[in-house]
Amino acid sequence: MNNLPANRYFSADPAQQRVAMALYQTVAALPLICPHGHVDPRLFADPHYQFGSPAELLLIPDHYIFRMLYAQGMRMEALAVPRQDGGGVQSDHRQAWQLFAEHFYLFRGTPTGIWLRDELANVFGITDKLNEHNAQAIYDEIDAKLKTPAFQPRRLFDTFRIEVLCTTDAATDTLAHHQAIRDSGWHGRILPTFRPDAVVNLDTENWREHINALSQVSGVDVVDYKTFMQALAQRRAYFKEMGARATDHAALTAFTTQLSDHAADAILQRALRGESRGDDAAQFTGHMLLQMARMSVEDGLVMQLHVGAYRNHNELVFERFGRDMGADIPIATEFTQGLRPLLNQFGNDPNFTLILFNLDETTYARELAPLAGHYPAVKLGPPWWFHDSLNGMRRYFDQVMETAGIYNTAGFNDDTRAYPSIPARHDVWRRAAADWVAGLVVRHLVDEEDGAEMVRALAYDLAKQAYNL
Amino acid sequence: MNNLPANRYFSADPAQQRVAMALYQTVAALPLICPHGHVDPRLFADPHYQFGSPAELLLIPDHYIFRMLYAQGMRMEALAVPRQDGGGVQSDHRQAWQLFAEHFYLFRGTPTGIWLRDELANVFGITDKLNEHNAQAIYDEIDAKLKTPAFQPRRLFDTFRIEVLCTTDAATDTLAHHQAIRDSGWHGRILPTFRPDAVVNLDTENWREHINALSQVSGVDVVDYKTFMQALAQRRAYFKEMGARATDHAALTAFTTQLSDHAADAILQRALRGESRGDDAAQFTGHMLLQMARMSVEDGLVMQLHVGAYRNHNELVFERFGRDMGADIPIATEFTQGLRPLLNQFGNDPNFTLILFNLDETTYARELAPLAGHYPAVKLGPPWWFHDSLNGMRRYFDQVMETAGIYNTAGFNDDTRAYPSIPARHDVWRRAAADWVAGLVVRHLVDEEDGAEMVRALAYDLAKQAYNL
Amino acid sequence: MNNLPANRYFSADPAQQRVAMALYQTVAALPLICPHGHVDPRLFADPHYQFGSPAELLLIPDHYIFRMLYAQGMRMEALAVPRQDGGGVQSDHRQAWQLFAEHFYLFRGTPTGIWLRDELANVFGITDKLNEHNAQAIYDEIDAKLKTPAFQPRRLFDTFRIEVLCTTDAATDTLAHHQAIRDSGWHGRILPTFRPDAVVNLDTENWREHINALSQVSGVDVVDYKTFMQALAQRRAYFKEMGARATDHAALTAFTTQLSDHAADAILQRALRGESRGDDAAQFTGHMLLQMARMSVEDGLVMQLHVGAYRNHNELVFERFGRDMGADIPIATEFTQGLRPLLNQFGNDPNFTLILFNLDETTYARELAPLAGHYPAVKLGPPWWFHDSLNGMRRYFDQVMETAGIYNTAGFNDDTRAYPSIPARHDVWRRAAADWVAGLVVRHLVDEEDGAEMVRALAYDLAKQAYNL
Repeated sequence: MNNLPANRYFSADPAQQRVAMALYQTVAALPLICPHGHVDPRLFADPHYQFGSPAELLLIPDHYIFRMLYAQGMRMEALAVPRQDGGGVQSDHRQAWQLFAEHFYLFRGTPTGIWLRDELANVFGITDKLNEHNAQAIYDEIDAKLKTPAFQPRRLFDTFRIEVLCTTDAATDTLAHHQAIRDSGWHGRILPTFRPDAVVNLDTENWREHINALSQVSGVDVVDYKTFMQALAQRRAYFKEMGARATDHAALTAFTTQLSDHAADAILQRALRGESRGDDAAQFTGHMLLQMARMSVEDGLVMQLHVGAYRNHNELVFERFGRDMGADIPIATEFTQGLRPLLNQFGNDPNFTLILFNLDETTYARELAPLAGHYPAVKLGPPWWFHDSLNGMRRYFDQVMETAGIYNTAGFNDDTRAYPSIPARHDVWRRAAADWVAGLVVRHLVDEEDGAEMVRALAYDLAKQAYNL
Repeated sequence: MNNLPANRYFSADPAQQRVAMALYQTVAALPLICPHGHVDPRLFADPHYQFGSPAELLLIPDHYIFRMLYAQGMRMEALAVPRQDGGGVQSDHRQAWQLFAEHFYLFRGTPTGIWLRDELANVFGITDKLNEHNAQAIYDEIDAKLKTPAFQPRRLFDTFRIEVLCTTDAATDTLAHHQAIRDSGWHGRILPTFRPDAVVNLDTENWREHINALSQVSGVDVVDYKTFMQALAQRRAYFKEMGARATDHAALTAFTTQLSDHAADAILQRALRGESRGDDAAQFTGHMLLQMARMSVEDGLVMQLHVGAYRNHNELVFERFGRDMGADIPIATEFTQGLRPLLNQFGNDPNFTLILFNLDETTYARELAPLAGHYPAVKLGPPWWFHDSLNGMRRYFDQVMETAGIYNTAGFNDDTRAYPSIPARHDVWRRAAADWVAGLVVRHLVDEEDGAEMVRALAYDLAKQAYNL
Repeated sequence: MNNLPANRYFSADPAQQRVAMALYQTVAALPLICPHGHVDPRLFADPHYQFGSPAELLLIPDHYIFRMLYAQGMRMEALAVPRQDGGGVQSDHRQAWQLFAEHFYLFRGTPTGIWLRDELANVFGITDKLNEHNAQAIYDEIDAKLKTPAFQPRRLFDTFRIEVLCTTDAATDTLAHHQAIRDSGWHGRILPTFRPDAVVNLDTENWREHINALSQVSGVDVVDYKTFMQALAQRRAYFKEMGARATDHAALTAFTTQLSDHAADAILQRALRGESRGDDAAQFTGHMLLQMARMSVEDGLVMQLHVGAYRNHNELVFERFGRDMGADIPIATEFTQGLRPLLNQFGNDPNFTLILFNLDETTYARELAPLAGHYPAVKLGPPWWFHDSLNGMRRYFDQVMETAGIYNTAGFNDDTRAYPSIPARHDVWRRAAADWVAGLVVRHLVDEEDGAEMVRALAYDLAKQAYNL
């Protein structure tokens, strides 16, 4: 189906490569467990959903791609990225695609480059290297395929061998698309995930509107801390009823704290009056992380925590294009002291699972692996975002596993909104895991029998277990 | 004697492996220099000391092992780890061992896993992989051996080819066991190390009792800063008389400062009255590090500094089980500004050696190597604790040596309280060092002649020289 | 010409080595682009300039070398390093050289070691390993060569195939040597670089004298913020007229801020009165970085920023020997929040280029690559100082390129004051780049065609483009 080298991404050493290939082949065809990601559930609600143009599918929504082109001086308008301030953008998707194709060389050596190559080859059967000359022909070929039933999302779900796919949904979401999927009787397992950031982080833009939406959807009029917590409890219960296995929380830092109900209420009341001050937002987020942990102990939802992205770093881009435009930049992160209040309350609880994600790799060996290698509740998520790459994975394996062991990690998730890239992303992980374990085997740290069990755990079992899927 | 692969832990590349093996063979049989560790001197005081059960030897005292089992949901009580609050624990060591054996797979790819494997094979002649089926048979085999004279500590000292072993002893220790070893006329070199943390760090639990003990053992009634310093001077002199070559200091940070005697006295007086406040403890520790350096310049004891462990992170575990229970978690560490007061006073002194240990690998290339590559007094200790592993060593070599050179490092120490693991730990280091140097040789950074001298220095000479052994 | 192994510094793996060699050979003979360094322009002003003794050329001015010898207990005086406080030093350069040669083994595995070896072999034709026995013979050989015309700087410029070499010059420099080079009609391209640190950083030693010099050389009497900015504008214009392509700025941190003119003036006035207080210097530097960016947008000079060296850490050495004595130690660095004010004003400007240099490698993947992979203005400079080494380059490639792509980096610069080491330094980079790209090729991340273009970009094109050379 493709002409990609079968041994791609493995070590060049012949002995290690041989072992890696053998290990990889035992897991290459396993179903995909997708416990965390950002695919839109709407894709599955309509049985006959069709993707738009190739640019709408592959270029316009993918900030991994257009941030790189922007960094090299292309305007995002020329790439047909929509402005939210009414400014005009390129309306001809073929021209946007052409511009992308002319600069595809910028992605040499990047994960985006290899995901795209693998995706073009394995999903669309296109094996030529994208460039300025073949841009339009490739556009035609993708476009034609997208119009066939085989490329509808539900059909691809089976083609991709996805066993389960979890979406990420605002606390205020009605889960109408999830309900529609259920009602349709389709066999695909699409589960929601509870993400309350927009109501919990007081400095979210338009926070008041999110609170109003929370009142409406929960049926609890949020007027103080008590009603806020009641509304959240209602939503968690509903998400759980709709199949959710987990919650997800993003915070700038891993700071956690236990405020008194009175203090939490005072902060929330100030926010409701539009009078937040000082570190209200940081204190409240830190407090709410601890409350969310408490609720997870009670309702059994796995708690995910994503820490360390300074969002919307570029004001100009934020004003013109809004959020998630490739302008989020990581900061240094501290876990040992920040998480201590939360872990001292719930870290020893056998009913609690806290999965940590992080953009500061220095914490892998220093803080995260020691925490995961001690606290029963803590597991480490796979390398996230900028680190979801071959080198990122190798650093993760090398820096986490000696101290945490693989069994205190949560396997892989693709964390993507780019649905057709899912197989390529899992394949990169499976190859990287096989190659890493092969390195242990050829250096005689583990034998081949143990190695095979480790690769299977990394490729499939650990994610399924960590999220109770 | 064992069936472990002879080329274990070397690079898979045939050329590098060949050179690594040749280099390793030149140092594999060299005596072991053990300048820092936590073996109990009592083992050597009684000529016929016998170890207890296999679980008492290998499982119950080893927080590297039970922390991992705890992280995976096993109760420490079930592992026969004693509670200090009177709570009951498993009294059948065979059952605790069985639980450990059933979960031995958790240690795949970890240093604990390979130390145990090497130790079982090379010390006890057991080459089967520990599992739930052979757990009791292996227990029997170890148990039987432990009852033979060949497995008494003094006999193992020779079997292990230990040239010298330094223990770590509280400033308040009478060194009675060391005296007994001396009095016995045994040839083994067991030397004490002066560790005053419990009296110097004001926030030590039961600090007042340690001070009382210091008064008693030193014969100096500690009532103020002046008498405190006199008592410490007395103890240092006694330790030196008893053969000590070094002191050891643990601190959360590398902060150092010079207080006036008056200010130091005020802080100490507050502590003696139980009225410590604010950052008294941090200021006093920072000041005392500088005083200890001053004393080292005078008495020639090498100063070791271990920085960056947040001790007893888990309150529940601390209350039930006490210190050193696998719940110490590293934090980010700063050396450049923190050590400057100390180094500006003593860093240029040819009579002073300061050996730095650290849990934050980001400081290797950024701060520690540049400091060691400039100040005559500074040497870097080997990778510590969580980083005493194959990857930890590789990162250390790769990140330290280009700037510091190997001759500003202090070779290896095993830092262990697990006596029978000592040969395995030194062997891992010697293999890692040989493989790293082999990498330099095959890439022609150094020639084989230089490579051989480097490996010998790393395996033996540097530790001996750094500690004046 | 030399007997250095042709495949030195490449991976030991035969397949990767083969590809690396093939890639390297396509760039090995390309001219050298030297956009940033510290070679003294005086070397080229006099057509017949001759170097002094071998010690004066290779040992005495090179803090990479004497810091290592100092760390091992040699006195800098014995190495003939001049004291600035009038203290006596070794006057016999042969004896200083002898001491160096006896300890040349200290440089095993260090970049200084391989630069020296390559330089001795390729520039001076000396292939014996320097040691105590051959020290004087090698001294003689170098000394004799230095007295021949072929070893005059202008001749070496051609021998080294340097295409362009940028110096680094104080804002107060008259550029008289640059003028002399121009006037001489020589074909060599030697360009100045505008470095205003000594007037911009208020805590520079003798800052007031630098301000006086600025007044004098610019013809603008600096009495307040307005005249200060006028004087700087005058100097920038003059440097540009003299061929400068870039400015260079060193700061302890990457903090930037926009002060009002009034606030900036108040700080400057306090400094002029010798009454600076609190964080005046940090605020002013942060403000001036932003002003320098504004001026770069206007005049097109590329802005270089070098962050994170704690200068003159060792007071004793500073008092005796002055600046740049191997006693600068890096600190942890933050870019994401620090640079935000500057980037929000100028980071989207297509006329602005900001090249970042850094001594804290943890920022590569976490902050620098994401910034460079988003902001049009940001490019990353090559690994700097302690990290200008084979491992440093490998970490840079592995940690930067996946997120930034190679095209948001600025290629290589040698940053050296050691003129004859320039070819060796570029050669190490070209080999390291070829080997890294070869690793991508053999693992099939990129094909050989792309690989060849990448290596050429890294070896030559990127530096030329980034600095508009």
